[in-house]
Amino acid sequence: MPLLKSWIDSANSATSPFPLNNLPYGVFSVAGGESHCGVAIGDMILDVTKLEEDGVLSPGDSPVFDVPYWNDFMELGPQVWADFRAQLTALLAEGADAQARAAVQAALVPMADAMMEMPFAVSEYTDFYAGRNHAYNVGCMFRDPENALPPNWLHIPIGYNGRASSVIVSGTDVRRPWGQLKSPDQPRPAFLPSRRFDIELEIGAIVGQSSDWPVTVDEANQMIFGYVLLNDWSARDIQAWEYQPLGPFQAKATATSISPWIVTRAALEPFACDTPEREFELLPHLRDTGPMLYDIDLSVSLAPAGKPASTITRTNYREMYYSAAQQLAHHTTSGCAMNVGDLLGSGTISGPTKDSRGSLLELSWGGKEPFTLASGETRSFVEDGDTLTLHGTCHGDGYSIGFGDCTGQVIPALKDPYAR
Amino acid sequence: MPLLKSWIDSANSATSPFPLNNLPYGVFSVAGGESHCGVAIGDMILDVTKLEEDGVLSPGDSPVFDVPYWNDFMELGPQVWADFRAQLTALLAEGADAQARAAVQAALVPMADAMMEMPFAVSEYTDFYAGRNHAYNVGCMFRDPENALPPNWLHIPIGYNGRASSVIVSGTDVRRPWGQLKSPDQPRPAFLPSRRFDIELEIGAIVGQSSDWPVTVDEANQMIFGYVLLNDWSARDIQAWEYQPLGPFQAKATATSISPWIVTRAALEPFACDTPEREFELLPHLRDTGPMLYDIDLSVSLAPAGKPASTITRTNYREMYYSAAQQLAHHTTSGCAMNVGDLLGSGTISGPTKDSRGSLLELSWGGKEPFTLASGETRSFVEDGDTLTLHGTCHGDGYSIGFGDCTGQVIPALKDPYAR
Repeated sequence: MPLLKSWIDSANSATSPFPLNNLPYGVFSVAGGESHCGVAIGDMILDVTKLEEDGVLSPGDSPVFDVPYWNDFMELGPQVWADFRAQLTALLAEGADAQARAAVQAALVPMADAMMEMPFAVSEYTDFYAGRNHAYNVGCMFRDPENALPPNWLHIPIGYNGRASSVIVSGTDVRRPWGQLKSPDQPRPAFLPSRRFDIELEIGAIVGQSSDWPVTVDEANQMIFGYVLLNDWSARDIQAWEYQPLGPFQAKATATSISPWIVTRAALEPFACDTPEREFELLPHLRDTGPMLYDIDLSVSLAPAGKPASTITRTNYREMYYSAAQQLAHHTTSGCAMNVGDLLGSGTISGPTKDSRGSLLELSWGGKEPFTLASGETRSFVEDGDTLTLHGTCHGDGYSIGFGDCTGQVIPALKDPYAR
Repeated sequence: MPLLKSWIDSANSATSPFPLNNLPYGVFSVAGGESHCGVAIGDMILDVTKLEEDGVLSPGDSPVFDVPYWNDFMELGPQVWADFRAQLTALLAEGADAQARAAVQAALVPMADAMMEMPFAVSEYTDFYAGRNHAYNVGCMFRDPENALPPNWLHIPIGYNGRASSVIVSGTDVRRPWGQLKSPDQPRPAFLPSRRFDIELEIGAIVGQSSDWPVTVDEANQMIFGYVLLNDWSARDIQAWEYQPLGPFQAKATATSISPWIVTRAALEPFACDTPEREFELLPHLRDTGPMLYDIDLSVSLAPAGKPASTITRTNYREMYYSAAQQLAHHTTSGCAMNVGDLLGSGTISGPTKDSRGSLLELSWGGKEPFTLASGETRSFVEDGDTLTLHGTCHGDGYSIGFGDCTGQVIPALKDPYAR
């Protein structure tokens, strides 16, 4: 598919992350005003809360954009999602008539003036562990290199429930957590700020329809509303002490940053690709039924306080072993009810090479091999003042699809967490 | 504290679970009508939605009982909780004046006519593993009897995030789940209905105030609104295959039953007791600051389809190693935000003896020692048609405090989970 041209010039650049082909969904406010739902187009945001108030767009029988999240719109289902996207495309396309342009003009806000907010209300958050290189690397470091992948790993997308209250929008500071830590050479644990605070480069899938029975991979795919970049901040030292036998808990509860824009499944469709070849055929209910991964170039940059950013890794979402549709299908096997606004993290996306690893844990091999930044500093884990930013781009035929950066600066731990 | 006498006679029996000393909170409907918030008193329910509409009770500046859950009331905070309880007590106490009695009379519904519903909207659900005998038994069965307790267990209340969407009110049927299973002697997993479906006898604590910083044990205790009985249904065979390395997921996502009545912390206060002696002093932020467990007699009965129930275990909530306040304090250490309506499962409550174990897994020692019911049948795990019921009672001076039974019947697995 080539670039779809818009009468909004800034959307027609081959490097704009927000051409007419994209149309991602977010929530924004200007100068402390009301939070509205918006659609990114070039360097502008189309205020769809205003367009709904004005009667230009009415996706539901009653208002869905009178709330500062996209959940009510998601509830309306895939047919409405498609119709609404078609309407937006018609309003913004090169040939749009004067009436359409006038309506749109009245609802355009410069992106530079907008403050981005959480694009949806997170119902529940599940994090998977479905990137093979990451699972292999972690298995080598913490368990047995000979048996790095757990025996279930090639049969089931391993996941655990995360904490929805940890999810924050890009740009929100992340405070270094305290936690119970114990190194192997200490007899007892201590309560201290985390010393091994880390990121995980992930893609988040947003569930846009509910279910309370097992769903097929195809049904699961239809339930997915869109995707965001996701940074699953992780305190490795808290995790090491707490995670046996029931999995990570406080190590992952401090913060989970997501990009401000939800890129819809429709926008990603031209970039769909297959999961990798498998050693074991999956059980029928999890088997691939079509390309449901996406070719999304991903990178992470790290900027120490007041210093320029270095790219520390480059990888691609197609490195995943399981698609979000497969993860969601697995999530429902027990009869687990899914709800609009559920968020599924892909798991850390690491490539096969050293410079394509999706966490500092892997990049510094557990802290044993610190890596060097453009500024000359070295890093094993994240330091106070560091800004970590995830970038994601699909490269189309003369256009790009972006998510907006997913960024967060780490601020120092509280001096005394119980001082009031 | 002796029995507080009410002018509602049925509340004055020493065996009623709902004397004036209790006043637990629930949501009910009658004959398919609207769902209202209610308070149990003797064999009646006081319809507080109606009392709020009538202007008899107005805990908030705007209505809080116009919704079928207690979350809006919880938001108002501990001082309002105490004032409201005092108002209810005055309206229902023996000496209440004619005006109070008339207002109450108009809002009383026979409990026998009411259908109970979920008493609150669950924000997020966390399940702990904080009963020492249970952790020891499971450790003996699945890991190393010499090192049955994981190294962290005596220092930290181990917990994992569960699935809020799994929480259902007592009386709701529970469908046996499908899942990926693999026994050690099979080379590959298969997708089948669970064969080792189980219960876990727990107490659930409901968070009634929000926080987004680490809270002390005392602050945590003040945030707890009340307690319910909780049955954490568990598919042991799904769990065995999936839980390494990130913990239980689909094994625990089918259903989590809770009792219909929330017993407030105020009602439980006369039954407060200390946690057990500890081998290691806890780190200061988790240390006990007063009695925060409760002396609640617990039992579980199992009734095969069409047959009488057998009591299969008897234990007590004071068997826990960590209080809910300690669990909540730990939950916030990383800065994890807590919200009104968060539910914390205590973990399985097993006593030290064979007949006080809180799960069939322990009662049948992993299925190796089936136990016999009053009907003469034996059980290793739950069978289709079985009704499992949790009971909980505090024995006061001439009165009892109950939660209402927490019951659920297991219905057969879907024949084909993907047939539509």
